[in-house]
Amino acid sequence: MSDPLAILVTGGTFDKEYDELTGRLFFRDTHVGEMLRLGRSRLEVSVETVMMVDSLDMTPEGRALIVQRCRARSERAIVVTHGTDTMVETARALAAADLEGKTIVLTGAMIPYAFGSSDGLFNLGSALSFAQVLPPGVYVAMNGQHFAWDDVRKDRARGVFEKTS
Amino acid sequence: MSDPLAILVTGGTFDKEYDELTGRLFFRDTHVGEMLRLGRSRLEVSVETVMMVDSLDMTPEGRALIVQRCRARSERAIVVTHGTDTMVETARALAAADLEGKTIVLTGAMIPYAFGSSDGLFNLGSALSFAQVLPPGVYVAMNGQHFAWDDVRKDRARGVFEKTS
Amino acid sequence: MSDPLAILVTGGTFDKEYDELTGRLFFRDTHVGEMLRLGRSRLEVSVETVMMVDSLDMTPEGRALIVQRCRARSERAIVVTHGTDTMVETARALAAADLEGKTIVLTGAMIPYAFGSSDGLFNLGSALSFAQVLPPGVYVAMNGQHFAWDDVRKDRARGVFEKTS
Amino acid sequence: MSDPLAILVTGGTFDKEYDELTGRLFFRDTHVGEMLRLGRSRLEVSVETVMMVDSLDMTPEGRALIVQRCRARSERAIVVTHGTDTMVETARALAAADLEGKTIVLTGAMIPYAFGSSDGLFNLGSALSFAQVLPPGVYVAMNGQHFAWDDVRKDRARGVFEKTS
Repeated sequence: MSDPLAILVTGGTFDKEYDELTGRLFFRDTHVGEMLRLGRSRLEVSVETVMMVDSLDMTPEGRALIVQRCRARSERAIVVTHGTDTMVETARALAAADLEGKTIVLTGAMIPYAFGSSDGLFNLGSALSFAQVLPPGVYVAMNGQHFAWDDVRKDRARGVFEKTS
Repeated sequence: MSDPLAILVTGGTFDKEYDELTGRLFFRDTHVGEMLRLGRSRLEVSVETVMMVDSLDMTPEGRALIVQRCRARSERAIVVTHGTDTMVETARALAAADLEGKTIVLTGAMIPYAFGSSDGLFNLGSALSFAQVLPPGVYVAMNGQHFAWDDVRKDRARGVFEKTS
Repeated sequence: MSDPLAILVTGGTFDKEYDELTGRLFFRDTHVGEMLRLGRSRLEVSVETVMMVDSLDMTPEGRALIVQRCRARSERAIVVTHGTDTMVETARALAAADLEGKTIVLTGAMIPYAFGSSDGLFNLGSALSFAQVLPPGVYVAMNGQHFAWDDVRKDRARGVFEKTS
Repeated sequence: MSDPLAILVTGGTFDKEYDELTGRLFFRDTHVGEMLRLGRSRLEVSVETVMMVDSLDMTPEGRALIVQRCRARSERAIVVTHGTDTMVETARALAAADLEGKTIVLTGAMIPYAFGSSDGLFNLGSALSFAQVLPPGVYVAMNGQHFAWDDVRKDRARGVFEKTS
């Protein structure tokens, strides 16, 4: 068995659902557990829901809580699911916290997992893999790639992540 | 942009489809291109269909062809999609070929991608990520994990991969 | 071959999609053609997009246009896809127009077709079938049932249609 | 509430699943209950699994059992899910049994419901609707159409149903 991992859930498009009574998107429970079953994951992984928010609503207090939970976890490899719009800001907050010895990989989705044609399952497989083999540090895993926290931005017009350098 | 990767397609459950006229499973074209689009992959990746076979029908000649194609590719990171039943044998053939400097990751699926509830997208995201960061060598990526070619077997009764050590 | 049918598309949840750049639901093209292919429909059916609106935004002018298009169509059996919130009001407008000899069936969906777990395909199969065999008149087909235009309401709290009588 | 209906399940492509350990298609439980939930059906419907067989394996004894169960049911509207290859033969057996006063509609699928891109949900919505409004008799509902039991055949080369007249 490989080393244990933690997945910290914070919300984002990844986990949005469609409310058929109101016609709005909303959060209920995370789909990460179901996705791990679908992916036939045999990793020793612990899933913790830290919050369920749209990343445009992520506050400094929310980021502080994510940092605190990453610090508190005993696992050395951590995947954080996060909305894509402010994922880079949260990566920066995690890097500033100097969580030595930990490999932290943020990931998310452009399409909600519940909507069938989502990139979420691909991204989760990718992020969990990067988290197992990258050296300690803070990374973003999107579009099949990994980026160092200080060399990445989201191009909102095209909906993709890219290096800033 | 990251270094270029190659995906060599050889068939397996991954790419099986349902023939509605005969009620049998069969191969048509690979779904890898569609999966990369779904995963919003922005990797520089070249997809080559080497063959489309059930891995129980994989022959020594077939394995020799896979080795030859891996050797011929210019990319240093290669993902090989393969049926799970004899994936480990093909990994062994690739390791024996001593393809120095190349990171080769074999992956597959327990459920065909075309069937909706497949592990294929998770595995593809995982394999592409491992291929980018693992040192040269031959690996199997299944169940969210990576295994060295000489420390892995498929437990057919449970349908999972595990270390032999 | 059976008698020809028309499908008039007006929007509604049925045809909503997820905009991955803005995170909002929106309309692009109708999915009715794709749904007919998925259902292996062999009906002689003509699809006309009249408008693409949320039914809460349906105006008297919009309803007049739907009435006019139903009148103009040569087919005697017509399915109208429509948002569920004001479907009954549009049914009433169609009944008031006295489109003699035509069987008009309104249907919709609680979950967008594009979201994978939609009731849309079930409802489309149902509405097309009712339209072929019910006598002339205006009906709503939802939840596997058909309702006369003057004996139906949507229970918004539960998201279901029911008789008023 | 509309009159009660029965759904008699006999197997067929409709209910096939993929066995990830053997790579073969097989039957487990019927998906009809799940499909009714997905379709938000509010019909008063009772689901009875009579058998789970490939319709190429349907025997005269199997057909006699289906006839017997249709006769025994108290509902006047019955949908029978059935493999497509011998659906017409079973329709003939039901017609020969002279089940007076009952509207019996056979339906099935070209693609298993479990495989995501199935015609099953469309066909179920269609068959349930025809069963509610067609006069007593035995029918086949496929491809959005309904056929009298003595005026239908499956064109196996094209995978569609058509009139014989």
